[in-house]
Amino acid sequence: MTTHDDGPGGRDDRHPTGNRQGGVLADSVRVEAFSDGVLAIVITLLVLNLRAPEQRGAMLHELFQQWPAYVAYLASFGYVGVIWVNHHQLFTRIASVDSGLLWRNLALLLTTSVLPFPTAVLSSAFQLGDRYDQVTAVVFYSLVAAVMAGTWLMLFHYLATHGHLLARQTSASFFAQERRRALLGLVAYLVAALVAQWQPLAGLVIAAVLPVFYGLTSEGWAMPWAARG
Amino acid sequence: MTTHDDGPGGRDDRHPTGNRQGGVLADSVRVEAFSDGVLAIVITLLVLNLRAPEQRGAMLHELFQQWPAYVAYLASFGYVGVIWVNHHQLFTRIASVDSGLLWRNLALLLTTSVLPFPTAVLSSAFQLGDRYDQVTAVVFYSLVAAVMAGTWLMLFHYLATHGHLLARQTSASFFAQERRRALLGLVAYLVAALVAQWQPLAGLVIAAVLPVFYGLTSEGWAMPWAARG
Amino acid sequence: MTTHDDGPGGRDDRHPTGNRQGGVLADSVRVEAFSDGVLAIVITLLVLNLRAPEQRGAMLHELFQQWPAYVAYLASFGYVGVIWVNHHQLFTRIASVDSGLLWRNLALLLTTSVLPFPTAVLSSAFQLGDRYDQVTAVVFYSLVAAVMAGTWLMLFHYLATHGHLLARQTSASFFAQERRRALLGLVAYLVAALVAQWQPLAGLVIAAVLPVFYGLTSEGWAMPWAARG
Amino acid sequence: MTTHDDGPGGRDDRHPTGNRQGGVLADSVRVEAFSDGVLAIVITLLVLNLRAPEQRGAMLHELFQQWPAYVAYLASFGYVGVIWVNHHQLFTRIASVDSGLLWRNLALLLTTSVLPFPTAVLSSAFQLGDRYDQVTAVVFYSLVAAVMAGTWLMLFHYLATHGHLLARQTSASFFAQERRRALLGLVAYLVAALVAQWQPLAGLVIAAVLPVFYGLTSEGWAMPWAARG
Repeated sequence: MTTHDDGPGGRDDRHPTGNRQGGVLADSVRVEAFSDGVLAIVITLLVLNLRAPEQRGAMLHELFQQWPAYVAYLASFGYVGVIWVNHHQLFTRIASVDSGLLWRNLALLLTTSVLPFPTAVLSSAFQLGDRYDQVTAVVFYSLVAAVMAGTWLMLFHYLATHGHLLARQTSASFFAQERRRALLGLVAYLVAALVAQWQPLAGLVIAAVLPVFYGLTSEGWAMPWAARG
Repeated sequence: MTTHDDGPGGRDDRHPTGNRQGGVLADSVRVEAFSDGVLAIVITLLVLNLRAPEQRGAMLHELFQQWPAYVAYLASFGYVGVIWVNHHQLFTRIASVDSGLLWRNLALLLTTSVLPFPTAVLSSAFQLGDRYDQVTAVVFYSLVAAVMAGTWLMLFHYLATHGHLLARQTSASFFAQERRRALLGLVAYLVAALVAQWQPLAGLVIAAVLPVFYGLTSEGWAMPWAARG
Repeated sequence: MTTHDDGPGGRDDRHPTGNRQGGVLADSVRVEAFSDGVLAIVITLLVLNLRAPEQRGAMLHELFQQWPAYVAYLASFGYVGVIWVNHHQLFTRIASVDSGLLWRNLALLLTTSVLPFPTAVLSSAFQLGDRYDQVTAVVFYSLVAAVMAGTWLMLFHYLATHGHLLARQTSASFFAQERRRALLGLVAYLVAALVAQWQPLAGLVIAAVLPVFYGLTSEGWAMPWAARG
Repeated sequence: MTTHDDGPGGRDDRHPTGNRQGGVLADSVRVEAFSDGVLAIVITLLVLNLRAPEQRGAMLHELFQQWPAYVAYLASFGYVGVIWVNHHQLFTRIASVDSGLLWRNLALLLTTSVLPFPTAVLSSAFQLGDRYDQVTAVVFYSLVAAVMAGTWLMLFHYLATHGHLLARQTSASFFAQERRRALLGLVAYLVAALVAQWQPLAGLVIAAVLPVFYGLTSEGWAMPWAARG
C-alpha cells in the first residue's frame, strides 16, 4: 500500500548477514544517522552566535549593527545545508562502510562541526574589528573550508578506488570525476584566502558563492552532460 | 562483491521509486530524519535563554523578574511544537523528494532554527527595554514568523504543482487548499507587526495565538468540513 | 539471518495503510524519534552548566568549589535517563498516535527540556546563595518535577481511556495502574517542595531519590507481583 | 481497532525477540538511536569551547593564543569519534537489550557527555593557568577518561556473562577478551594521571594517544591474530 512495500526486503535488511567479512565493517545506515545528527546540530547551533541586544532604548540600533552576524549566519547555514545535501547524495551511492571510509567520514564531520567557530570569528571581525582583523577572519574561514574540501577529496578518492563499497548502480568512475569537483573547491577556497589579503570583502564573496556552486552540482557535475548525451 | 547483493531486497530498496529518475532525488526518510533532528534541537536549545540568577540573597526575586523570558520560552516551544506536528503531517503525504522540495524544506528549517534569536530579543526587550524596544522586538519576532509562513507557502505551492511527489492517497488539490492556510499566516503575522507599532502587547498576543490555530488545523483545515460531508 | 528477519513484515510496515482513519494520526515511529532527539539533547546540554575555572593558580580550588554543580549535573542526568527509559517502555506499549497523545507527549517534552534551567538554579543557589536562595532553588526544582509528574499522569490517563492506541499485548488497565505511579510522584515532589521550606537539603534528597524509584519501576510497578504470581 | 492489526507484520515485529520475556527489555534499535544522538551532540558541542576573539586589531594574535583550545578540541573530537566507532561495533554484536545493559549504557553515555567539561578545563589551564593548574587539568581529564574506561569494562563484563543478549554470530568469549582492552585503558589513564603530577605535558600526550589505540582496535584486538590464524 505504501510506496515502501513494492518489493520484498523491506527496511530490516539493513542488518545484512555477515557485516564483518572482507574488511566490510557495516552497512551505512548508522553512519548516515550519526552524520545526519552531527549536521543537524551544527546547522542549528549557528544561531547561538546571534545575541539579543541588552541596552535599554537602543535595541533596534543594536539589532542593525549586528548585520555581519546575520550575513555570516545565512552563509554558514547555506553552507552546512549544501554539505548535508551532498552527503545525502553521496550515501545513496554507498552500500557498505569499511573503517577507511568511516574515518574519512569522521574527518569530514570534524571540519563541518568546527564551522560555527570561523563563522563567529567572521561576524566578530566585521562587527568589532579593523581591516586587518577582517583579513584574518576571511583567510581563516577560507582555510577551514579548504581543509573541508580536502576531506571531500579524500572521501571521493577512497570511493573511486574501493568500488566494492558502492551501490549497484554506481561505478567507481563516477567518484573519479567527483574528485575534480572537490579539487576545484580546494583551489577556489585557497584563492579566496589569497584574494582576502588584498581585499577581504572580495575574498568573502568568493567563499560565500562557492556553496551555491556545490548546491547546484550536488548530483555530480557530470550529470547535465550525461543527461544531454 | 558486498554481501548486500546476495538476495532480493538489499539495501537499495530504500529508494523504491528510482532515486535518480526524472528529477526524483530520493525517498523522504532521510529528509524527515534530518528535519526532525533540527526541530528537536531548536526546541531544546530555547532553554539556553533562561539564565540562573547569581545574586546572593535575591534569587527568588530574580527568578520572578525573568517572567518575560518564561512567556517567550513557552510561546516559542509551543510554536516549534506546532511546526513539528505540521511538518510531520506534511511528510505523511509525500512519497519522494526532489531537489526543489529539498531546498524549500531547508528554507523552512532556516526560518525555524533562527527562532531562538527573536525569542531572546523578545525576552530581553520585556525585561530590560523601554516601550520602543518592545515594539522593535515584537515587530522583529512577527516578521521572522511571517517569513516562515512564506516558506510554508512555497512548500505547499510546490507540492500543489508537483503531484508526482505525493503519496498515493493525497491529491495535489489538498495542497492547493493548504496554501490558503499559509497565506493567512503570512498576512496575520504582518498584521501583528503593524499592531505592535501601536500597542506592542497586542501584537504579541496575536503572534502568540497564531500557533494555536495552526496546531488545531495541523491535519488541514478542510478536514472538519470533509469529515462532516 | 539477523534476528529481525524472523517474520514477514519488516520495518517498512511503520507506514501502515490509512494513517488518517478514525482519529488515528500516525504510527509512533516519528514521535519516538523526535522524543528521543529531544531527550538526547537535554541530557547532553546539561554539561553546559559546568564551567571551566579561569583563575590562574587556583583552578583545583575552583573545581572543588563547584561541587554543587556536579551533584546537580549527576542528579539531572540520572533523572533524564530515567525519563528516557520510562518513555521507551511506554512506547513499546503504543501502536498508534492520535493528536491527543501527540500534544500530551509534547507537554512531557516541554517539562523535560526545561530541566537544565532549574538544575542551573540549584547549582547556583548552593554555590553562591544563602539559605533563603537554597529554599527557593529546591522548591523551584521540585515544582518543575511535580508538573512533569502531572504530564505523565495526563499521558497515562489518556492511554487508560483510549485502548485502541495500544499495542496488542497491552491492556488499558495497565495504564490505569500506571496513573497511580505518576500520582505518587506528583505528591512526593510536592512534599519535597514543602520539606525544603523547613530544611532545603532534606527536600533536595527527596527530589534526588525519586528518579531512582522510577528507574526501578520503569517496567510498571505491578511487574514484580505479576512475576511472582 | 487500529489499522496495524490487519495483516501480518504490524509494528510490533520490531521487538522480534519478545520484549517482555525473561528480562529482555527490547531490541537494540532505539537504544542505538538514543546513544547516537547523545554522541553526535557531544561531539558537536565541543565547538562551543572555541570563542571568537573580540579585541579590535589583535584578532590574529588572539586566534594563535588559543592554540591549547584547538589541541583540546581535536583530541576530544577524536576521542568521541573513537567512542562512537567502538559503540557502533559493540551494538552490531548485540541483539537484545535488558535493563542491566540499558543502565550500563547510560553510565557510558554519562562519562562521555561530560567530556566537554574536562576539555574546557584543559584548554583553560594551558591558556591561562600556571604549571599547577596544568597538572590539575591533565589529572582531571585522565580521571574522567579512566572512569569511562571503567564503564566500558562494566559493559563488556555484563555481555561476557549474559550471552543471550548477543547476536547469533558473537560468542560471550569475545567480550571476555574485550574486558582486557578496557582494563588496559583504565590502567593507562591512571598512569597518565600519575605521570601528569610530575610532567603535565607527558601525561597529556599519553591521554591523547590512547584513543588512537582504541580507534585501531575498534573491531576487537583479537582480530589481527584471528585473521592471521
